[in-house]
Amino acid sequence: MKKSTTGFGLTLLALLTIPNMANSQENNDLPPEATEFYEPVPKKIQAGPQLGDAPSDAIVLFDGTNLDAWQNAEDGSKANWNVSDGIFTVNPGAGPLETKQEFGDVQLHIEWRAPQEIKGEGQGRGNSGVFLMNNYEVQILDSYESKTYTNGQAGSIYKQSPPLVNATKSPEEWNVYDIIFRAPRFNKDGMLIKPATVTVLHNGVLVQDHFEIKGPTVYTGIPNYTAHADKLPIQLQDHGNPVSFRNIWVRDLD
Amino acid sequence: MKKSTTGFGLTLLALLTIPNMANSQENNDLPPEATEFYEPVPKKIQAGPQLGDAPSDAIVLFDGTNLDAWQNAEDGSKANWNVSDGIFTVNPGAGPLETKQEFGDVQLHIEWRAPQEIKGEGQGRGNSGVFLMNNYEVQILDSYESKTYTNGQAGSIYKQSPPLVNATKSPEEWNVYDIIFRAPRFNKDGMLIKPATVTVLHNGVLVQDHFEIKGPTVYTGIPNYTAHADKLPIQLQDHGNPVSFRNIWVRDLD
Amino acid sequence: MKKSTTGFGLTLLALLTIPNMANSQENNDLPPEATEFYEPVPKKIQAGPQLGDAPSDAIVLFDGTNLDAWQNAEDGSKANWNVSDGIFTVNPGAGPLETKQEFGDVQLHIEWRAPQEIKGEGQGRGNSGVFLMNNYEVQILDSYESKTYTNGQAGSIYKQSPPLVNATKSPEEWNVYDIIFRAPRFNKDGMLIKPATVTVLHNGVLVQDHFEIKGPTVYTGIPNYTAHADKLPIQLQDHGNPVSFRNIWVRDLD
Amino acid sequence: MKKSTTGFGLTLLALLTIPNMANSQENNDLPPEATEFYEPVPKKIQAGPQLGDAPSDAIVLFDGTNLDAWQNAEDGSKANWNVSDGIFTVNPGAGPLETKQEFGDVQLHIEWRAPQEIKGEGQGRGNSGVFLMNNYEVQILDSYESKTYTNGQAGSIYKQSPPLVNATKSPEEWNVYDIIFRAPRFNKDGMLIKPATVTVLHNGVLVQDHFEIKGPTVYTGIPNYTAHADKLPIQLQDHGNPVSFRNIWVRDLD
Repeated sequence: MKKSTTGFGLTLLALLTIPNMANSQENNDLPPEATEFYEPVPKKIQAGPQLGDAPSDAIVLFDGTNLDAWQNAEDGSKANWNVSDGIFTVNPGAGPLETKQEFGDVQLHIEWRAPQEIKGEGQGRGNSGVFLMNNYEVQILDSYESKTYTNGQAGSIYKQSPPLVNATKSPEEWNVYDIIFRAPRFNKDGMLIKPATVTVLHNGVLVQDHFEIKGPTVYTGIPNYTAHADKLPIQLQDHGNPVSFRNIWVRDLD
Repeated sequence: MKKSTTGFGLTLLALLTIPNMANSQENNDLPPEATEFYEPVPKKIQAGPQLGDAPSDAIVLFDGTNLDAWQNAEDGSKANWNVSDGIFTVNPGAGPLETKQEFGDVQLHIEWRAPQEIKGEGQGRGNSGVFLMNNYEVQILDSYESKTYTNGQAGSIYKQSPPLVNATKSPEEWNVYDIIFRAPRFNKDGMLIKPATVTVLHNGVLVQDHFEIKGPTVYTGIPNYTAHADKLPIQLQDHGNPVSFRNIWVRDLD
Repeated sequence: MKKSTTGFGLTLLALLTIPNMANSQENNDLPPEATEFYEPVPKKIQAGPQLGDAPSDAIVLFDGTNLDAWQNAEDGSKANWNVSDGIFTVNPGAGPLETKQEFGDVQLHIEWRAPQEIKGEGQGRGNSGVFLMNNYEVQILDSYESKTYTNGQAGSIYKQSPPLVNATKSPEEWNVYDIIFRAPRFNKDGMLIKPATVTVLHNGVLVQDHFEIKGPTVYTGIPNYTAHADKLPIQLQDHGNPVSFRNIWVRDLD
Repeated sequence: MKKSTTGFGLTLLALLTIPNMANSQENNDLPPEATEFYEPVPKKIQAGPQLGDAPSDAIVLFDGTNLDAWQNAEDGSKANWNVSDGIFTVNPGAGPLETKQEFGDVQLHIEWRAPQEIKGEGQGRGNSGVFLMNNYEVQILDSYESKTYTNGQAGSIYKQSPPLVNATKSPEEWNVYDIIFRAPRFNKDGMLIKPATVTVLHNGVLVQDHFEIKGPTVYTGIPNYTAHADKLPIQLQDHGNPVSFRNIWVRDLD
């Protein structure tokens, strides 16, 4: 809190920045309780032991053992990507995975690693992606030493917004995305009244800052919003490259 | 990226969510290059080895050894808080510290720990604060097992916005704030045209989500913006409690 | 639309501002249809004959004849303000009015005139107010030649945000407010996840620009959001001054 | 203002919506002056006599007599569109016009009328456009009884966002756009840190609500921001159709 007795630091600064010096005497006579509120009480949760660990109010989507939270996104069949050694890896050709549970506004933590054998260039090297609400993609790509279009590299909102910086790690290391996503809203006529927004930290570095998503991710053409359900699955892409994942958890913000 | 050959997953979903099925044939005939851009290239940086470590483009404000980046905020004299064992601790009565360098839009990482001897209640237990631009406070407080007003607990924008959840750790553990801050803007008449915004992750958990700050933090009365400089120091509060700090770094977002 | 054949105006400017000159050849070969969408079709409405007249999709809250759309806000009894000559006027002491219908997101048009007998000073001269969702006040006041605090003058969000300019007309003339309001949103824990926003044109002049409302309007103390219903009435204040109203209509934006 | 003596209207509602009933006694004991501010004083201006007329702080871009505020946008030569009877009309083939003065954040009022001889269909009927900062187009089109793609009709942000409703008047009548535009911002690396935003009232009806513009308007391909000057001209398009204009004024919001 701001301490009333010690003032505001440098006096000169105070003169510059405190708005109402003329009024300040009467304000200082006020009971500070006037601006203190007691309800609702923020729910107490337990943060994870280390930065990146799931907090107590998270839904764990992968804890290192199984893919029970996921299914094949094309036909709803059992998720058959490869789980071993506490991680799971895209099974090329098996198709994308999606969560069985559906989500709207979320905070999502996901860790990924490019394939250990470096192969291909640009979009062909270590390509996957995480789709919020099955529609809005944060790109996953081995952008460590491979060039591609800026709005298609790791940390981009695919084909919409390049990352502010390239914070991608080498294929020997794990990357972390911390994503804050707010779902779009539509009015009763089906017109968009609030685009989805997304903030992304890539390995702890801000790469997307409350970006207003332009519409569902499309490979060709321009994104265009149309009304959809309030909650939809989170999807991981099978782009034919054996990208690996670990430590995935999500918090429902809605 | 979105793979054109595998489509979009579940067909039923696609029908629901893909806007222009009627147009989709012609869109699929388009060269995807139409929506790929190559400039400007996001700067390549090196993320820290572990989550929370400073990336290569950060300005390190405390690396465990000295307070050279800081000065007394009241008179500009040498910072005389206590440095030992790689951390530094509020020197009660010595007055607040501020960075010698000034900042506007930033990403700030800061770690803090409540005093080891638990004393006091509410605002009297482990109270300090980090002021962006010397004016906008993210509250630091031992809110682990002590109650206070919701807009004054750890993770609050002091007297303006309670945290979404209480993610405070026990005094034996370190807390981490990752803060994304955008400075306010004023027009030529001195009227506010864009409030400051702030997003805060507390121990990796979202507690402030792009909150529009109501004005400079005040202990009594109501916050009220007035025009100020584009860049100002970051300040740490001496509230009389021996709160400790470590691993502080900042990235200039502007 | 942008005409492909005439280019973008000044060539020098084009070089400065067109992003992908290197790509532009291929882009110009693209079918423009790729970025053209046909659904959903915006509903066709009929705008009013003159600027300020109700469009066909508006709900008319006062058409000059009666107060059937309103009731006493304190006890739900019949609205007993004074209707004559196509306008209605605060009946001092009768209490505030509120719409029988409830609203969330709206565009609101309202015209008001200060009392014809100029009496009082500051907040005592021609004081009323329009409350969105019964909670968020756009101030009505005779601020033509009378001074008061800036966040309490006409066009302010009362005690929260002064108008960008003072566009108030003299008491002989009518004032017009065109208001765009978006309701706040709360999550399942009752925490605010989206403040209300408001844009106000006063006599056609921008005075509030997508301002994020700080909480319900309060006369003393600080505004503080708490969860409330999605739709609530619009309220007009009886502040003891015979302020007059005419031509009130609202469009449901949700 | 909110009157402390009459309370907040319906008691039941008050219980529902007033946050801190427990605290309210102490708050009511507070001096209300605590939340009243006197500086900076919003500049006093004179609104126009009728809604749509230029206020005293506007720069008039066309007052019915001449095109002195404009020049040919392709080569900077004299504006040679046709002025008569207090209006001016596109001179097909003469090229676009742009303001001699450059602008960033603005409120823009512009009135336009479709050609009197109804000819063509869709994008071929009454097509022109107003470009903010020479880059961001609010579409002008005779959309009264002619169909086209939704993101290309009157009131759209061309190829980016359809209007919320179609409020276009018949070619015998004049249309009015009231536009609130905020320029984009770029950081020192040339990365976008704040997209342009736009709100549009079409004949007094909200058709764009604080839309975040996706990038410069393009006919083919996808919009893509690149850094540009802080101020640039406003441009009117020559699309080969004799669209007419009158009563154009702009207010500098920066």
